[in-house]
Formats: sequence, C-alpha cells, structure tokens
Amino acid sequence: MIHFRNDYNDLAHPKLLEMMMTYQREAHLGYGMDHHSRKARETIQKHIKTPVFIHFMTGGTSTNLTVISHLLKPFEAVISAKTGHIEVHETGAIEATGHKIITLETKDGKLTANMVKDAFETFTDEHMVKPKMVYISQATETGMVYLKEELIALYETCKALDLYLFVDGARLGVALTSNISDLTLDDMVNYTDIFYIGGTKNGALLGEALITKHEHLDAYFRYSMKRQGGLLAKGFLVGMQFEGLFRDNLFFEIGRHANNMASYLVSGLKNIGLIFNETPTNQQFITLPKSKVEQLKKTYTFEIWQDFKTHQMIRLVTTYRTTKEDIDTLIFDLT
Amino acid sequence: MIHFRNDYNDLAHPKLLEMMMTYQREAHLGYGMDHHSRKARETIQKHIKTPVFIHFMTGGTSTNLTVISHLLKPFEAVISAKTGHIEVHETGAIEATGHKIITLETKDGKLTANMVKDAFETFTDEHMVKPKMVYISQATETGMVYLKEELIALYETCKALDLYLFVDGARLGVALTSNISDLTLDDMVNYTDIFYIGGTKNGALLGEALITKHEHLDAYFRYSMKRQGGLLAKGFLVGMQFEGLFRDNLFFEIGRHANNMASYLVSGLKNIGLIFNETPTNQQFITLPKSKVEQLKKTYTFEIWQDFKTHQMIRLVTTYRTTKEDIDTLIFDLT
Amino acid sequence: MIHFRNDYNDLAHPKLLEMMMTYQREAHLGYGMDHHSRKARETIQKHIKTPVFIHFMTGGTSTNLTVISHLLKPFEAVISAKTGHIEVHETGAIEATGHKIITLETKDGKLTANMVKDAFETFTDEHMVKPKMVYISQATETGMVYLKEELIALYETCKALDLYLFVDGARLGVALTSNISDLTLDDMVNYTDIFYIGGTKNGALLGEALITKHEHLDAYFRYSMKRQGGLLAKGFLVGMQFEGLFRDNLFFEIGRHANNMASYLVSGLKNIGLIFNETPTNQQFITLPKSKVEQLKKTYTFEIWQDFKTHQMIRLVTTYRTTKEDIDTLIFDLT
Amino acid sequence: MIHFRNDYNDLAHPKLLEMMMTYQREAHLGYGMDHHSRKARETIQKHIKTPVFIHFMTGGTSTNLTVISHLLKPFEAVISAKTGHIEVHETGAIEATGHKIITLETKDGKLTANMVKDAFETFTDEHMVKPKMVYISQATETGMVYLKEELIALYETCKALDLYLFVDGARLGVALTSNISDLTLDDMVNYTDIFYIGGTKNGALLGEALITKHEHLDAYFRYSMKRQGGLLAKGFLVGMQFEGLFRDNLFFEIGRHANNMASYLVSGLKNIGLIFNETPTNQQFITLPKSKVEQLKKTYTFEIWQDFKTHQMIRLVTTYRTTKEDIDTLIFDLT
Repeated sequence: MIHFRNDYNDLAHPKLLEMMMTYQREAHLGYGMDHHSRKARETIQKHIKTPVFIHFMTGGTSTNLTVISHLLKPFEAVISAKTGHIEVHETGAIEATGHKIITLETKDGKLTANMVKDAFETFTDEHMVKPKMVYISQATETGMVYLKEELIALYETCKALDLYLFVDGARLGVALTSNISDLTLDDMVNYTDIFYIGGTKNGALLGEALITKHEHLDAYFRYSMKRQGGLLAKGFLVGMQFEGLFRDNLFFEIGRHANNMASYLVSGLKNIGLIFNETPTNQQFITLPKSKVEQLKKTYTFEIWQDFKTHQMIRLVTTYRTTKEDIDTLIFDLT
Repeated sequence: MIHFRNDYNDLAHPKLLEMMMTYQREAHLGYGMDHHSRKARETIQKHIKTPVFIHFMTGGTSTNLTVISHLLKPFEAVISAKTGHIEVHETGAIEATGHKIITLETKDGKLTANMVKDAFETFTDEHMVKPKMVYISQATETGMVYLKEELIALYETCKALDLYLFVDGARLGVALTSNISDLTLDDMVNYTDIFYIGGTKNGALLGEALITKHEHLDAYFRYSMKRQGGLLAKGFLVGMQFEGLFRDNLFFEIGRHANNMASYLVSGLKNIGLIFNETPTNQQFITLPKSKVEQLKKTYTFEIWQDFKTHQMIRLVTTYRTTKEDIDTLIFDLT
Repeated sequence: MIHFRNDYNDLAHPKLLEMMMTYQREAHLGYGMDHHSRKARETIQKHIKTPVFIHFMTGGTSTNLTVISHLLKPFEAVISAKTGHIEVHETGAIEATGHKIITLETKDGKLTANMVKDAFETFTDEHMVKPKMVYISQATETGMVYLKEELIALYETCKALDLYLFVDGARLGVALTSNISDLTLDDMVNYTDIFYIGGTKNGALLGEALITKHEHLDAYFRYSMKRQGGLLAKGFLVGMQFEGLFRDNLFFEIGRHANNMASYLVSGLKNIGLIFNETPTNQQFITLPKSKVEQLKKTYTFEIWQDFKTHQMIRLVTTYRTTKEDIDTLIFDLT
Repeated sequence: MIHFRNDYNDLAHPKLLEMMMTYQREAHLGYGMDHHSRKARETIQKHIKTPVFIHFMTGGTSTNLTVISHLLKPFEAVISAKTGHIEVHETGAIEATGHKIITLETKDGKLTANMVKDAFETFTDEHMVKPKMVYISQATETGMVYLKEELIALYETCKALDLYLFVDGARLGVALTSNISDLTLDDMVNYTDIFYIGGTKNGALLGEALITKHEHLDAYFRYSMKRQGGLLAKGFLVGMQFEGLFRDNLFFEIGRHANNMASYLVSGLKNIGLIFNETPTNQQFITLPKSKVEQLKKTYTFEIWQDFKTHQMIRLVTTYRTTKEDIDTLIFDLT
C-alpha cells in the first residue's frame, strides 16, 4: 500500500527513534522535570530571539482545552472560524471546560482582522459572553496558511481589543516551510500571545511544544496541565522528541519534504487536469468518480473528505516518508 | 547512581522498545483503530474468561477523570479513601469534571465494605450529592493490596447499594504478583465494574488499559476520551505496549521482579533493623536521620516521603531494572 | 410614562399579589415541599390530561441550564436556532455546564423538522459531539409561534432520531393565546418531552413551571436544581404564583390581553403605514428615524432593538397592563 | 401549630410586604438596574464607612457557587470547615463549577487562623490544588458566631497567605445581633474580602446582598451572575427587600428579636435541665426521648437533627414571629 491517509500514521521519524534508543538505559525525573525536557527547551529557544516559556503537551485537543481553560475567566469566550478544529472535531472539549466558542463564517478557514473586529462589537453586555481570545490554526484544517501581513493584522487587532491570539500549530511544520510562507518561528512569537509547535503531525512519536513569551500566561500553567490530565508521568518522552526535532533542523526538513512532495503531486495533478484549488501545504483535495475512488482504495490509503452524488472528494496527505515514486505511481493510476 | 526513585523513570522495558522498532516502517490507522490496538485487545482478552471491552488511555489522571465523568450523572459523587490518588494528587481533576469526592478516613489507605456502607447511609436527600461510585487503588498509593475476600466484600456492597466499583490499577502489576495476592485478572473483572491495567508504572512507554465487562458502561466511551483530550492520534503507540506486555506474560514478569527485589530489600532492611511496616509490593518506606538521607543522595535516587524534626521518611521503589547488587550496595551503605 | 419596554417590569398581577397577602400569616415547608406548591401542581394538572411531573423554577436561564445539564451526557449537545436565547443571551450558561450548542441558521427564529434532520446527519463519530436534544422557544425570541403541525413534525423527527424536544416557554402565555395558535397545554405535553410555562413574563412575581410526562426525565431532578443553585428555600413563593395563575385561567387571560393589545397596536401601526412584519404575539418591531425615537423616549419606555445609520428598530411589548389608551396615545404621537 | 422549624417558613416580614404593595403600580428596569436596587445599595452603604460594591442575589447556594467560581482560577480551591454549608448541603454545587473544597475538621464548625495556616502548608506543588480562598459562615450552620478577634486573625492569615476570606452570611442578622457579638457591618467589610447579608433567613421575601470593598473582585461579576442563572429578570424584587430591611434598621430588629426569643428559650430549657450546649444565636439543639419527640410533633414544627437509639436531637429555631407565649407553651409541654 502507498499511504496518503494522514501525517500521523507511523511511529516517528527514524532519526528520532534512533536517538531515543540511545537513551534507553537512562533514568529520568518524572513529569517533565527531566534534563531532556530542559535540553529541548534550550534547543527550541536557540531558534527564537525573545525569551519564551515552553511546555511539552501530549496532543492537540489536550493542548487546546488546557490553554483555553487556563487563560479565560469563566464568562469569557474564544473566537474561531466555523471550520476550526476546536469547533468541529474535539467533541465539545472546549465547552467541557465551560467556555463558549464564538464561530465566524469564513471563505477558506482563515479569520481576518476585520471579521474579528466586527464580531467583537456585537458583544455588548453581561447578557452575552465576553470575547477574550482568538483561536486560529496555522496551517488551517484545510491546508491554508496565514501570511505575515495577515498575522500581524490579527495580532494588532487582538491587542487593540484586549484579546489573546492563540495559534494551534498542530501543522506548524508545513506552514512555516510552505513555498508561500514568509513567517519564521520568531514571527510566531512576536505576533501571537501563545502558540504551539506540533510534533505529532511532523515526525514525533507524540507531543506538542506550547510556547508563550508572556510570564503571566505561563504562571501556574503546570497546575492546569495536571488538572486536565495532560501532565505525562514520563514527560521526558515528549521532551526527547523536541530535543531531536530542533537539534539539527529536522523539524523544518520534515515539513519541507512533505511540502515538496505536495508540490510535486500538485504538478502531476495539474498535468492531468485534476486539481483546481491547490493548497500551499501537505494536504491536497481532489474530486473523483466513486468508481475511481473504489479502485484507488486497493493500492492507496487516503480519507474521503466529502460525499457527492456520483463523486467523492478525497484528501491526499504527504509526509516525510512520501517519495516521488509514490506520487508518480498515483498520477499514473489517475490518468 | 542507583535508582529507587519511582517506577516510571525510564523509557520502557527493552523488549517493548525492541518490538516497537520492528514496527517502524508500518503505517497505521489513527485514534486507536489500528491493528496493534486490536491485537492488544485480543491478547489481553486471552487472559480473561469473561468477554470485556478495552480502551487504551494515556495516563492515570486522564483515565480517572474520563471514567468518572463518563459514568456519573452531574449530581453523583465518588467515594475514595482520604489518601486516594484522585483526592490528593490530581490537582482537582475530578472536581474539574463537576463531581464531588466523598473522602473516608482509613487506617492504611484501604476502604472496607463497612466503611462504604456507613458513609452511603449519611447521604439522604437532594441537598446532598448522591454517592454512585467507589474508587480504590490496587495497589494503593502506599503499597498495600486488597485481597480477594476484601474485594468481593466491596463489590457485593457496591452492588447492593447500586454503586460502581472502579479500580485504579496504575500499579496492578505489582498488586497481582505480590506474594500475598490471591487475585487474578479474572477476579479483577469479576469483582469490579471497571478497572485499569497500568502500563506506565509497569514497563510500558506509556499507557493504561481500561477494562469493563459491562456494555452499557462502555457505550460512547470514545466520545468521552476525545472530549477529555485523551484520544491519542497515534493511539497505536499505546496499543503496541499492551500487545508486548501481554503476548508472553511480560506484564507479570515485570511486576514479579519488582516485588522480588522489594522482598529482598525488606530482608536486608530487617537484618539491620530499619523497617517496621513493610508493604507487600514494590514501595518500601524507611525513616532515617537527615544526615544519613543527605549522604545517601550522593549515590541513590529516591523520594522524601515525610519530614520530621531530625528524621525523614524516604520511599524506595524497586522496578524490573533493580538488581540484587543495587540492593546489597544500599544495605551496605545503610549499615 | 407609558410602558412598552418588556413584559417583566412590574411586581406581579394584582390578583396574585392580593392572593399572596392572604397567605402572609402561614408557615410553610421549605424547598418546594409546601402545600401551595402541591396545590399549584394539582391545579396545573387539571389543565392537562396526561399525568405530568412539575417543578417550580426561579427563572429562564436557570431552568434552561438545569434541564440541559440534567438530561444530557457530557458529550451530548443541544441543537438551537442561532437566535435562540440559550445561544445569544445567557452568557455561556449552557457551555458552563459542559455542553455545546449546535446552532442552525433560520429565517425567522423557528427550527423545522428538516433543519434538524439535516444537521443531525453531519454528526458522524466520536470526534464530534452527539446531538441529543432540540431546544426551541414558544413564542420565539422574536415573537413568532410554532403551529401544531410544525410542533408535531419536530417531535416526530426528534423521536425518530432519539433526541429530546425541550421547549423554552418563557412566553408560552402569549404563544398559546395568540390568534393564530392552534395549540393547547395538552398539545405541549403530547408533542414535547419537556417544556416550561413561563410565569415571570406572564404576570407572576417570579418563576417558571417545568413540565414533563416522562418519569425517567424527572428522576433526581431536584438534585440538579439544588446543585445549580435553583432550589429556592422559600419555594412556596413560586408555588403560590402558579396556584394563582391556573386557579381561574388567569394565566390565559393575561396572555390574551397582551395579545389583544398587540393586535390593536398592529392595526394602529398599519393605518399609519409603520409596520411590515407584524408578529402574532406581544412583541412588535418598528423602524423609525432616530430623531423620532429620541422624541418618543420622553413619554414611552421601549428597547432599541437594532441600530441603523439614520434609523433605529425599536421593540414595543404589550402586557396585561397595557390599555387601548396607551396605544391610542402612542399611535397619535407616531402619526 | 407553633413553629420552630426554620427561619424561612413565611413569606416575609409584614413591613416588607406592606412596602412592596405600595410599589405595585410602578414599572421598573430589569435585571437589577432599577431604582429600588440602587436605593437599596445606597441605603446599605449608609451603614458602612468604606465604599463597597453590592449585588443582589437570589439565594445562598447560588451566591456561594457564583462567588467561588467567579474568583478562583480553575486549579484553585476553597478551604471550608467539614461542616460548612458548601461541603455538606449544596449537592456538589461548588464542585459543579470545577473547584475542590479542602475540608478541615473543627470542634464547633469554626475555622481558626492556625487551622488555615497548617492546611495551607500541605499544598506544595502542581500535583495538588492551590488553596486560594477561605469560606466561613457567620453564624455557622450550628449557630455559633465568630468574634472580632477571631475574624481579624483569620483575615490577617488570609492576607499573609494570599487567600480571599469569603463569609457566607445567610444568618448574618442573628450573628451581628447576638449577645456575645462584638462585630459591626463595618467590621465585616474591614475584615473580609467578600461577604453577604442574608435576607431569606432574616425576614425578606428572598435574596442576599453580596458585598465587597475590592473593585477587582467586583469586576464583571454580573457576567458570572448571568452565566450561573442568578440574574433575576425582576431583580427589583430583591432590591426592594434590602431597601426595606435597611431603611429603618428592620434588618437588625429582626435578628435581635430572634436572638432574644432564643435566649428566653434557653433560660426556660435550663430551668428544666434540658440544654447543655446552648448557642448564641437563633438555633438551639436539645435531645429528647423519641416518644416525647412524637408527642411534640402534634403541636410544634421543628427538624430532627440527629437520630440516636432511643433519643433524637431536635433543632428549635426562633424568628421575628416567635413570641414569649410560643416558648412558654413549649417549655410547659417539655416539663
């Protein structure tokens, strides 16, 4: 089988597994107090000019619910695109912590500064929730990326309205290494209040690195991690992943390779007239007759994204393991 | 350094790491729908006569809060020993899901059927919470174990009072393989409503296996896992651990070795008159002059359990990695 | 001043106040266990053929959050119009109990059976919440009413999809006595799972009467009332209101008078060409130049509903206290 | 029947009912924005030197859960006596907002500064909740009162440990007018962070007046009131109560009369050797043979407080309606 199902279908990048094996005789302190977590924090800090606070989390939903419930007062709410992960695919995890999500319609899954401003103004008194945070995903759930100018506009608006800007970076790897991206890790720190670097979908065994430059947002955060069941006893496990990902730019190489393979896939699909709305990252969506989809299932893994009468839209995801041969074979079978 | 700090200070048992490495080129379905998780479930089921439902969780606190919030109605409460993990060491994770913990004083961290019955009767009307679950740990936080007779008495009482019996088995490995234990996995299924097999503290990279024989308790449980941030994208990671732990009785070997080393440690401590309240599992507690404790810190890792004026009680934990030499050295240094 | 501001701006209907005063030397049991609450239940039951369970609540938001949190499992969600009171005007009270509101766009604030069916089908697995309840208001927040046929269609759909149908009846008085209404209290019982009769906005000092025909929905409900801070010590206070409202059809008279005055108001407004979208209940909305609005404020109370450039939409609410003279004066001033 | 059941068994003090009736033709703004609520705030402020913020609430449990959830961060906890109302008789209302109650054993239901200090020190890191508030009741659930010296000691300790001191004043009326009390309303403001004046149990139709001197604790409090279902549409109803209670010292007269009757009752009981642990407020507890209790039930209302083999402890509560004749009759029947 050739895999285009998702970007979290194997254990981890071989270099990370190898590195882990060299640590197998060590003994570590628990709950993220170990020296690998410390080293990982130092290593990430080397990529960032501003001093930051870093916590290692186990997964995306867990990070989202912990951050949001830690930062908001009970009556405060978070603004998200209607397609945002916290709104659609977290089984009410944010509401479970007592907070409303204010959802905005978007064209492509991306919020704009103006959308936020307009929405904010409709919340006028104590009979309504108080907006206090904007949540965006970089890259979005549909593979789009925010450019520097867009992120700055959002951040400036948030500051003006006294809102936190929180970025879900489950796919930050492909976002920062996208051909169209003009953002660096430093920009992410400068133009957000808090964000995370996704490991799970970028080669790590598991884990996300949560980053904020604000000491007051960091304060007591470990209490919230523990309370939400997210403080792993073997926290060093996640620390090691980020130690490995950022020691030699592996994090960026993994994202870049996935994007390169996606570009190569897009070229192939264009040649055979099969793609119209390409994305700048590692997720591409094409629509095929159902019979064709059935046939592809024999050789390829992928997800059905949307069901139409005679056709289906499928999602093709590239990763660090995708090869040109994988794509050539697929294009051949699609021709 | 020689390690007696805890039973979750290394990556994982070498056999599990080895096994994982053989899977590194595979691609898996996400969120625990993979074939390793399926195989792990089948493998565990082979050790149990009654058909059971099994979910793979990421950690103890996460499992406790997900089970309790899944099973209780909003106004229902859980009964626990005052020393129970959910009461003392989970930063209010259970209350975070909206449920009160009814705490009972115990002699040694173990609840008895009579304690439960007496407490239950004090909750009489809608001005008080409604007790609906009993939570115990096997082994307890202080290293004690429930014997078959005790567990049956608790379970019968729970059934009579319409309470669920939920067993936190973070240290079930050492409980079931303790010298004094007369319980099997089958007994755990027969005499509880729901319980878990701890992986994290028994050699696994991470994870706990939650088990119930009741279909109605299992229903929609995955919704609660997701909502609480506990449905790991790379769920196969945890599945593999339990596949490896139960394929060849490794789970029991790990527990047994830890217990054997604890017995050996107790003998040594007895010879030099240093232990009075030994436990039947892998945690032993001794009290030493502070100067002695300081001196030991140079060669050994362990936790300070309690502080007295001139003395300190320390906790010594044995694991599958503890050797007789480790203990001989310690006893020599204690003499 | 002449009052069109809202339907809860005075103490209570004089007959209710009078009745209360006759009880002032009595002593009652607390928390709704008194004989006035019992009598009120019996009195309401006389208007309803099916045997029902009745609880007296203190207000709308409190009732909504108590019902929803009592009936739903943690991962279950409630479907509401995007204009629904629970979504817009309760400061996140439903999310505060851990539940997501699934909002649907509507033309006029009313949900249809088809809308519910279509929305339901998009919730497919454990990565999304599980819809379990439909919430509608009768009358809606914008003064519209559901007709019998519409309510039956919704209820049948709910039953087919295993959803509860919950009706917020804060303004049930004007809904049932509207000229266009073909519904009775019996229909409300037959074609919903649970609903309430609003007292606060229909002449009572305070309180809502929650009604369900299902014993299993009623079970332990008083626990949830207490837990949510809604079990009034002097519960008899609310019981008395409903005793008075239903003893001699006062409840319906109050609604009918408000509706009659609204019809009279609509006629007047039509004569001077000022209304286009009348409603069948006691709330009417008209749009006036801002200067006119300012001028009216000197003699009348009302709420600004929406702000446009040069105009404002204002809401005019009629109650049991509104007289033809009040309206004649207003129409005169509007001409 | 002669009533000793509780202090909330009638509608309201005649003077309050009379006053209300004079307002029955008025129209008011909703949600506590009316001029009676404003006047009530001004009237209470006249009794207090420090400028304070005042909110009118509907009941005790509702006030407790709103204050606690408004002030605490998710991982913060409240310290209470094990006999505290929030722990025993609120059906988990505090836990429902996500917060743990840390309970301390006391001799008589009263916390001391030292108890708080000792408990505080046992909470050391992020594996445990963070104590942030001390909750006491004045008078306590068992009729005891805190003296000035005790309150100051608690408050100083709270300040030193960065804890809020929150006083449940459901029975503040009898506490402040108790013979042994040396506290004034001013003291309550000076030596607490936030407290409430109970109306429900001191002659009001319903309601409690929440008071704080701290602007930052008051900020956005109305959002929390609404979110918790405690912002009454007819808020003026509660405002009027406090307007009436504090206009002419009626609040204190009501408490004083209840206490005087309690003293008279205690004298009578002492004469016949029936009381050993009198309280300084309006609740007295005596133990009688069960047959005697049965006999009393024919003429008197009261609550059974505790059940023993052959005896029962009953609670006798005096109110502004209790007369010397009521008590003489009771003493006669007890002789």
